[in-house]
Amino acid sequence: MLNFENFSFEDVQKAHQRIAPFVKKTPVLSSQTANQLTAAKLFFKCESFQDTGAFKFRGACNALLQFTAEQKARGVVTFSSGNHAQAIAKAAQKFGMRAVIVMPKDAPEIKVAATRGYGGEVVLYDRYTEDREEIGRQLAHDQGLTLIPPYDHPHVMAGQGTSAKELIEEVGELDYLFVPLGGGGLLSGCATAAKALNPNCIVVGVEPEAGNDGQRSFLSGSIVHIETPNTIADGAQTQHLGLHTFPVIQRYVDDVLTVSDTQLIDAMKFFASRMKLLVEPTGCLGAALAFSGKIAMDNKKVGVIISGGNVDLIRFAKFVQESNG
Amino acid sequence: MLNFENFSFEDVQKAHQRIAPFVKKTPVLSSQTANQLTAAKLFFKCESFQDTGAFKFRGACNALLQFTAEQKARGVVTFSSGNHAQAIAKAAQKFGMRAVIVMPKDAPEIKVAATRGYGGEVVLYDRYTEDREEIGRQLAHDQGLTLIPPYDHPHVMAGQGTSAKELIEEVGELDYLFVPLGGGGLLSGCATAAKALNPNCIVVGVEPEAGNDGQRSFLSGSIVHIETPNTIADGAQTQHLGLHTFPVIQRYVDDVLTVSDTQLIDAMKFFASRMKLLVEPTGCLGAALAFSGKIAMDNKKVGVIISGGNVDLIRFAKFVQESNG
Repeated sequence: MLNFENFSFEDVQKAHQRIAPFVKKTPVLSSQTANQLTAAKLFFKCESFQDTGAFKFRGACNALLQFTAEQKARGVVTFSSGNHAQAIAKAAQKFGMRAVIVMPKDAPEIKVAATRGYGGEVVLYDRYTEDREEIGRQLAHDQGLTLIPPYDHPHVMAGQGTSAKELIEEVGELDYLFVPLGGGGLLSGCATAAKALNPNCIVVGVEPEAGNDGQRSFLSGSIVHIETPNTIADGAQTQHLGLHTFPVIQRYVDDVLTVSDTQLIDAMKFFASRMKLLVEPTGCLGAALAFSGKIAMDNKKVGVIISGGNVDLIRFAKFVQESNG
Repeated sequence: MLNFENFSFEDVQKAHQRIAPFVKKTPVLSSQTANQLTAAKLFFKCESFQDTGAFKFRGACNALLQFTAEQKARGVVTFSSGNHAQAIAKAAQKFGMRAVIVMPKDAPEIKVAATRGYGGEVVLYDRYTEDREEIGRQLAHDQGLTLIPPYDHPHVMAGQGTSAKELIEEVGELDYLFVPLGGGGLLSGCATAAKALNPNCIVVGVEPEAGNDGQRSFLSGSIVHIETPNTIADGAQTQHLGLHTFPVIQRYVDDVLTVSDTQLIDAMKFFASRMKLLVEPTGCLGAALAFSGKIAMDNKKVGVIISGGNVDLIRFAKFVQESNG
């Protein structure tokens, strides 16, 4: 298996060739209002339009397409708070293999239903008392399944990086790239692609304030573990960066910054009202940073990865109403 | 001025050349789930991503770009329930002219605010007791403004038709094209384009059940007038087709069908939950027909115009919650 020591842009390039027939080239949208608000030129890479509604399908396809015949015959297992679950389930369905998904009991209903809808066998656990990684490893061992974790795997990281590669290939060089940060699969892949194609691009990972383990790890130089953070950004409720993702982030990422849940809701409302896009809270991290004023972006070209759009409609409705009430 | 007797695809072609530097080429999106539900191949032309959030910007640009220097110096006036208002205001701002907009007092707040945001001078009226056309004509007369009505004008119709032209040029020949129908500006332009590029394409106008004047006019052969209909599709609350749009619809449109407000809400929820798109009720007319089962579409290629995305978020939240409650 690849590891961080030789993880490179070539892995992202090969991943892109491998998955291109199976994933969508997602649209890049812009908004005059967003540009006016920030005095910058923003390019939103809409992974919300990716299959399964999030970038995770890229990494899942890249991982499963490298299975041996025997691995394929036995199937895949993973643990995930949601979008990776759907991605693995749908990719497994597409490539004709069994998928077992370990999901938290409090995951958004839309994500559990969608995972089952793609034929995934769902095993529920309590994210506050049980260890999902241990459950996943045990299932893999007992049933001969191959474990593909949600972020800490080079094949996953390489797949996720194809989103930044597509963005830069479409719009040209960027001054900044803002990427949501949970466990670091998306950020490590995107930073690797961005620095190879566009060495002067400043790559910033964006976390929810309540779950700033990535920022603390980045600043301290070693992986910081935290309790499951309380944030609406359910895709970034990770407790720590990965052994594979962290060194790549250290090498290629320029900064890690945070935004509040209130800023995420404001960005979510902006996307809906001005750009007609439904974006999940985690998908708003990059835009929330752009709108925060934390970075001076006058006349800069800024890429923003919208990581996904899987927000339950009732939950979305509550966000909209509470912040108006 | 052009009239219906010589309105042709050439007008749409010229409109396209004229407005191309100023309007967005909107994305065409698809959904595997939508295709499975209908057994067809659906291509959604997303005018919700057009400037001002609706197709209306196409017609507004095409009309204003044909003003003489004197007309331009004096400005434009229009009456509109919303999207045409924003379109005229923004186009006038872009081309450096004054815009006066006659709007109903009960128009969605988001649309009134957006119109003012684009520099439009808003004159409010009561749509149940006052005649907006009379108010518009009076303002035009008193202030030397040029009246550009929301649909019944060949320059407007030609501009709107560019959306169907773009769709067919991008995805190739269609078996069906479903187009929202209010006053007929979009439908007449799109039908003209579709029948020229793709003569076998069956073009269907789609109205809300409560406001089926278009269907009745189409079937009876003369323009039927109704009271302002009570429907959530505020962009299709027109009382009658136009003198210019009706003959074109008679010539090129194959059928006019209706859908209920409940079907519109279901389509709106589908767009949000499965396609991550915020679509206004009127924009859901074509999709609601596709999902209704009224037309057998097995293995057919079906184009659907999503006319706009300007739905107030609080209103959207209520639709989502009421239909789940």
